[in-house]
Amino acid sequence: VRAFEQKSLASGACGETLDDVPEAEDGIAPQLASLKPLGQVRESFILAVSHEGLWIIDQHVAHERVLFERVLRQRQTESIPVQKMLMPMVVELTPGQQAVFSEISDELGRNGFEVELFGSRTVVVKAVPAGVESCDVEQMLGELLVEFEREQQAMNLDAIRHRIAASIACHAAIKVNMPLEQNKMEWLLRELAQTECPMSCPHGRPVVLRYSVKDIQRAFKRI
Amino acid sequence: VRAFEQKSLASGACGETLDDVPEAEDGIAPQLASLKPLGQVRESFILAVSHEGLWIIDQHVAHERVLFERVLRQRQTESIPVQKMLMPMVVELTPGQQAVFSEISDELGRNGFEVELFGSRTVVVKAVPAGVESCDVEQMLGELLVEFEREQQAMNLDAIRHRIAASIACHAAIKVNMPLEQNKMEWLLRELAQTECPMSCPHGRPVVLRYSVKDIQRAFKRI
Repeated sequence: VRAFEQKSLASGACGETLDDVPEAEDGIAPQLASLKPLGQVRESFILAVSHEGLWIIDQHVAHERVLFERVLRQRQTESIPVQKMLMPMVVELTPGQQAVFSEISDELGRNGFEVELFGSRTVVVKAVPAGVESCDVEQMLGELLVEFEREQQAMNLDAIRHRIAASIACHAAIKVNMPLEQNKMEWLLRELAQTECPMSCPHGRPVVLRYSVKDIQRAFKRI
Repeated sequence: VRAFEQKSLASGACGETLDDVPEAEDGIAPQLASLKPLGQVRESFILAVSHEGLWIIDQHVAHERVLFERVLRQRQTESIPVQKMLMPMVVELTPGQQAVFSEISDELGRNGFEVELFGSRTVVVKAVPAGVESCDVEQMLGELLVEFEREQQAMNLDAIRHRIAASIACHAAIKVNMPLEQNKMEWLLRELAQTECPMSCPHGRPVVLRYSVKDIQRAFKRI
């Protein structure tokens, strides 16, 4: 188990945390693009092979990475797709959350949230970024405000945008325990190959575990 | 890499060496029988999944284990299938090999080899156990005689039979670097599930590497 983790750390570290700028990882993208997905473990982890070996991909964090970078791009061009709520949702805020809300409401708006103050400690959510389920909205907004409340003083605009993008990506991404068709797995690996930092999710967790043919031969005592 | 090996050792050890009697491994057979093969890595290692996790199976040693136990059973009932050589093959022996040959020629005969002395240091091979390629025969016979020459004093009949069965199994087994159709992979796993000791080959090498869903979740820092 330990080597499993060490390997994933070795291959999965991109040096990026939430507040860093993603770095390009040379050589990973062409390998990812040449992978052939074979199926899933427990409908959560994609098994894929290339001539070089075996890759295991965490489908949720892989999609999270794809969406995270997409949301950041769309934010830059102010083109985040929005979906109207069927029913506006009322969310109560604590005094701390209320203070934070006024700080970030403009940025939330530019990220696809249509949220208005309604009285002093209540907001009404009328629209959210596309892909976010309405049943997730209250929890998501609560988590975001709690995070910002905790770290507000040190946050610059870039950091705020990264946090919001990571939250949208997390809530809109494919979940684990979800069967994926062959073409959906292929699509996800293609999309992941096009990201700037395909090896770790916005929260720093590894997206892929890699085992070379040599690793496998060694484990079988062939070399 | 280290854990890969540790895991395979932990799961692959059956306590059996060439000269031991195979032990049953409770609980492995039903798991093996429920595996779904998804494909191969480098046309050599079968990837298979169950609800419990990921298995990697070395196709050559898996088939070796299947054939080894089959040859031993067939030897017991004197029913080893034989194939005639298209052309009899002449093999030169060293004096040491010649001495060994006379010791084991009867047992070789009962294992499907039709080999006759021809002069003092030459044998003629007229038939071999089914599944052994004619291009392998000379090397195989040479290796067997060298092994027996080295260890002759300590060998009882059981040990001799195990050695011969292991050699036949090794030479008749599916090789690595060979693409396998889906039904062939399924057949191999079914056959392996029916062996008495599916986790290691007759030479003691691991046949399978197992990774539980928990191992994978841990490597992805999910637990």
